[in-house]
Amino acid sequence: MNERKLSLLMDFYELTMANGYYMDHKADQIAVFDVFFRSIPDQGGYAVFAGLEQVIDYIKNLSFSDEEISYLKSKQVFHESFLSYLKTFKFTSDVYAMKEGTPIFPHEPILVVRGPIIECQLIETMILLTINHQSLIATKAARIVHAAQGRAVLEFGARRAHGYDASIYGARAAYISGAIGSSNTYVDYMYQIPAIGTMAHSYIQSYDSEYDAFKAYALTYPKNTVLLVDTYNTLKQGIPNAIKIHQDILEPMGCRLKGIRLDSGDLTYLTKEARKMLDQHGLHDVKITVSNSLDEYLIKELIHQGAQIDAFGVGERLVTARSEAVFGGVFKLAAVEKDGEIIPKIKISENVQKTTTPGFKQVYRFYDKDGMAEADVMTLFDEVIDSNIPYHLFDPNFPWKSKMIEDYTVEALLKPIFISGELVYRIPSLEEVRTYAKQEHQKLWPEVIRLENPHEYYVDLSQKLWDLKQDMIKKHKK
Amino acid sequence: MNERKLSLLMDFYELTMANGYYMDHKADQIAVFDVFFRSIPDQGGYAVFAGLEQVIDYIKNLSFSDEEISYLKSKQVFHESFLSYLKTFKFTSDVYAMKEGTPIFPHEPILVVRGPIIECQLIETMILLTINHQSLIATKAARIVHAAQGRAVLEFGARRAHGYDASIYGARAAYISGAIGSSNTYVDYMYQIPAIGTMAHSYIQSYDSEYDAFKAYALTYPKNTVLLVDTYNTLKQGIPNAIKIHQDILEPMGCRLKGIRLDSGDLTYLTKEARKMLDQHGLHDVKITVSNSLDEYLIKELIHQGAQIDAFGVGERLVTARSEAVFGGVFKLAAVEKDGEIIPKIKISENVQKTTTPGFKQVYRFYDKDGMAEADVMTLFDEVIDSNIPYHLFDPNFPWKSKMIEDYTVEALLKPIFISGELVYRIPSLEEVRTYAKQEHQKLWPEVIRLENPHEYYVDLSQKLWDLKQDMIKKHKK
Repeated sequence: MNERKLSLLMDFYELTMANGYYMDHKADQIAVFDVFFRSIPDQGGYAVFAGLEQVIDYIKNLSFSDEEISYLKSKQVFHESFLSYLKTFKFTSDVYAMKEGTPIFPHEPILVVRGPIIECQLIETMILLTINHQSLIATKAARIVHAAQGRAVLEFGARRAHGYDASIYGARAAYISGAIGSSNTYVDYMYQIPAIGTMAHSYIQSYDSEYDAFKAYALTYPKNTVLLVDTYNTLKQGIPNAIKIHQDILEPMGCRLKGIRLDSGDLTYLTKEARKMLDQHGLHDVKITVSNSLDEYLIKELIHQGAQIDAFGVGERLVTARSEAVFGGVFKLAAVEKDGEIIPKIKISENVQKTTTPGFKQVYRFYDKDGMAEADVMTLFDEVIDSNIPYHLFDPNFPWKSKMIEDYTVEALLKPIFISGELVYRIPSLEEVRTYAKQEHQKLWPEVIRLENPHEYYVDLSQKLWDLKQDMIKKHKK
Repeated sequence: MNERKLSLLMDFYELTMANGYYMDHKADQIAVFDVFFRSIPDQGGYAVFAGLEQVIDYIKNLSFSDEEISYLKSKQVFHESFLSYLKTFKFTSDVYAMKEGTPIFPHEPILVVRGPIIECQLIETMILLTINHQSLIATKAARIVHAAQGRAVLEFGARRAHGYDASIYGARAAYISGAIGSSNTYVDYMYQIPAIGTMAHSYIQSYDSEYDAFKAYALTYPKNTVLLVDTYNTLKQGIPNAIKIHQDILEPMGCRLKGIRLDSGDLTYLTKEARKMLDQHGLHDVKITVSNSLDEYLIKELIHQGAQIDAFGVGERLVTARSEAVFGGVFKLAAVEKDGEIIPKIKISENVQKTTTPGFKQVYRFYDKDGMAEADVMTLFDEVIDSNIPYHLFDPNFPWKSKMIEDYTVEALLKPIFISGELVYRIPSLEEVRTYAKQEHQKLWPEVIRLENPHEYYVDLSQKLWDLKQDMIKKHKK
């Protein structure tokens, strides 16, 4: 297997804080930390949660080798007893998280860690790194898949990804959000995400003529001949050659040309012309794939202009989330426990949006009678919502904006993942995650999914949690 | 060690092409491929080449395991004899590359592969992925270090990087371009890049008061007390508490407060006030570090406004290169060889800038008598430049713009890395790369380094290469 030892992939301050807690005899202080984010990339209406499986893998395997301990010792800032603690490190905390593929919204906890503060701190960096990356790409991919309106989206970004993991887990995140495959062979090998690809311009150029290159390819792959038609001149040469290959080579073998790909030029004009030329020769079934700096905006515009495209190969702008390359998930202290009592913690900011919501929390998603998502409500963790009773939803910033909701169902989104350090969650297969993501996406109103100026989905607070927060803000002001 | 088996991290089309070449008996066709890029991120004047060490590691270890072969077989598109070839794969090609840390410019080859076309194709994806990522971050970091005008730049981006490698190799690339350390402990452990960090807001919040938290920290780290002062109120509470800690705890122990960090608020105003307050208490040596969504533009503006800052912690905008998250390196066929003769290849585009420069090439950098870089000139690989003879530089697009250069030195930038598959290059240490990068950076004119509207550095063609290119363009037009 390809396990790496990444235990030291953590911000150094996690270690200085952990050592500090240890030396100050408060390592076992129980704390609650929330992972949440504050704004949706690209002014979108929702984000998609991804990366949980890799967070679980990391936590399950977290340990510190002799080499790692020796290195830490060499820094001459950590106490011997703290290093002994690390040497026999055992994860004992609780982790709650939303399921991968869940649509997520600003300010609500998407993952919660409850346990000794020393453990919470040690796992902070890798949790954020993993979730921020995969949620970023899953969110971008969802936008692109939406723009493609049912046409295939292929993840083609390996060569422009930010390193190997970005290529691998970026392809994984894109697949969760509905891409149908990836150019990256490794993710097919490891995750059964279909690998897709045929030829580059260099293949064509390496032959004396485009026709010769096409012929060689068709003879090698008669059942899977997809030809890149834009090396020299798409309409005058590439497509006529592709049609000729179908007639000269494939048809006599009882095969059919499967597709063509365009990687340059005006894709609206060229695909319309290409479609006509193919259809005129009875090649109605030949698929047209395009690539070249695509993203959701260009895809939407191409479709709007009537481009004749069956599949979009989307590279650098998906795998780097170029339009907004940062997913700003944070890891904030929400509570500590003293003598079994939860003491909520708040971080007040002059910026209201940056003031945290205190306490150990659950998130409930409310669905209307047709199963459409109406709103999320953050509650104290042990609050129970009885869907037989109408529920009072109100805007936490403008509480007079409120409504009673009846005839609803409700689901607690934060599921137990680890309890007392034990994995209690059945990790779903990637296919299950992908199916779940699609299904949950269908429960969002079109207004929320819209790329431009989407409707803001409500994330409310329960009355109890709202009261707690207001109380703490008032106390702070005194 | 942490070696991963990433041999299948390649675009699937590399494999379909490779199998095609193999079946068509042209796998051993010698080809020359150039890696180059077309535009500098952020409209900058130069980029910085990075990632070569990881490219070398990859090529050295490239092999295909039984499991990988079985997987490929299961795709039912690859011929048994091709799979046998992969099973006993041995890299036999030549690789030439610029040294890591070299300032690089559009259109010039930064890495050249010459060898059997099947090998060139198999290594394309990983070469591009590695170089595009690290050059992107090294380039962004160089801009940020330039903006900081000698003040320390710390790479703080682990939690927002695009996966684990992006954090690790991003920190490496930032270090090459002059960052003095990273928050990521792993890169200190593996690459001796100094790990830096002290505490988060959660540490302060976990204590009953800010003073208690500072006190606990100072007692644990009396020789290295850097305090985060913005959890509650920077000027009214954080800095006064820090000064008190110096007086109450550190001074009696014979130690001094080392620094403070601010992570919010108006950094110009707050650092000016902080500096005054510290100086008033004789704490002239206490360093001020700031963080919070910094990049080269904000850093320049803070300095311009007289902010009192000793070190900048730069996170997400460096590690993701947020302002331009894509480095567009490409891998293009430049020549093939037939019967020992080089046959140059060109890819013509309607866009002049996208037309490739044909042939097996070298790049010479010309320095004036003071050692400043004057221009780069692409030549045929075997051209020799005698610096005793004046050299005729001319703009390849506007050849009447020309000048004779005398009293110059010249260096061939593409160094042999692998020859016939053997590693012939001594891999420099990371410190050597960093020193080289700094030294080469100093050879660039300030006009080229400038962040805004920099002067365009010339990348010219030798007369022979220019003639060849024009000939091929003319032939193509006929």
